Amino acid sequence: MTALTSEVSEFITRARVGRLATADATGQPLVLPICYAFDGRVLYSAVDAKPKRRAADDLARVRNIRENPKVSLVIDEYDDDWSRLRWVILQGLADVVTTGEDFAAAAELLLSKYPQYRAMGLSRERGTMIRITPQRVLRWQYAS
Amino acid sequence: MTALTSEVSEFITRARVGRLATADATGQPLVLPICYAFDGRVLYSAVDAKPKRRAADDLARVRNIRENPKVSLVIDEYDDDWSRLRWVILQGLADVVTTGEDFAAAAELLLSKYPQYRAMGLSRERGTMIRITPQRVLRWQYAS
Repeated sequence: MTALTSEVSEFITRARVGRLATADATGQPLVLPICYAFDGRVLYSAVDAKPKRRAADDLARVRNIRENPKVSLVIDEYDDDWSRLRWVILQGLADVVTTGEDFAAAAELLLSKYPQYRAMGLSRERGTMIRITPQRVLRWQYAS
Repeated sequence: MTALTSEVSEFITRARVGRLATADATGQPLVLPICYAFDGRVLYSAVDAKPKRRAADDLARVRNIRENPKVSLVIDEYDDDWSRLRWVILQGLADVVTTGEDFAAAAELLLSKYPQYRAMGLSRERGTMIRITPQRVLRWQYAS
């Protein structure tokens, strides 16, 4: 785990979406948009509250994390005014939480950040939650 | 290479940004926002026209692609109205083009899609261009 500056923490907390890259055991990456909540230390993303074509356990991102816990998450917003571009990348390790206190706390954070999850009835009891523990922070800002 | 439907092609052509995941030989992914141009077959992204802290050759994404050509690119737009969410993911292979006809054609496409590159003097002659050849297309749309 790595300590995040308050500026990075605010940026991560404020953003609504990130893109998470996992990779399978053969090194094939897979990148997906995710909604996430940040508790000041780790990030959580629910994988089975939104409609999916398969069971959560079978989702490629979960399979990848079980094969290889190394992940990368980028948080950025695109703007055609490139002087406004910036990104934060978290290089870290992911694992899967399915129930318990950490699960409940993560669900609470997600429900409070995304009212959309309330209508979907995101469970505070059990489900499939990806936990991302940042180990390294990369930052970039357009410098003209 | 895989054939893309016209709907997917249009979606890819219209979007202004994608997030590209590469992975190094140890399976550590790295995901970055990229601007890209699509020629109907492959995608190109310039890596040295925007200010960077290091020489392009040394950039982690280029180093990763040289170690492991497998990449993943997601194209999506976030919306708090989740019924509007959709994404297209291209699983493919990347290589690096530094000069020649393909390079010139790619630079032309980028200059036409992003006027920002004109002010920066993106070269049509030589540079570092990532070429992504899609091999598999994944699509998702929110189904309520």
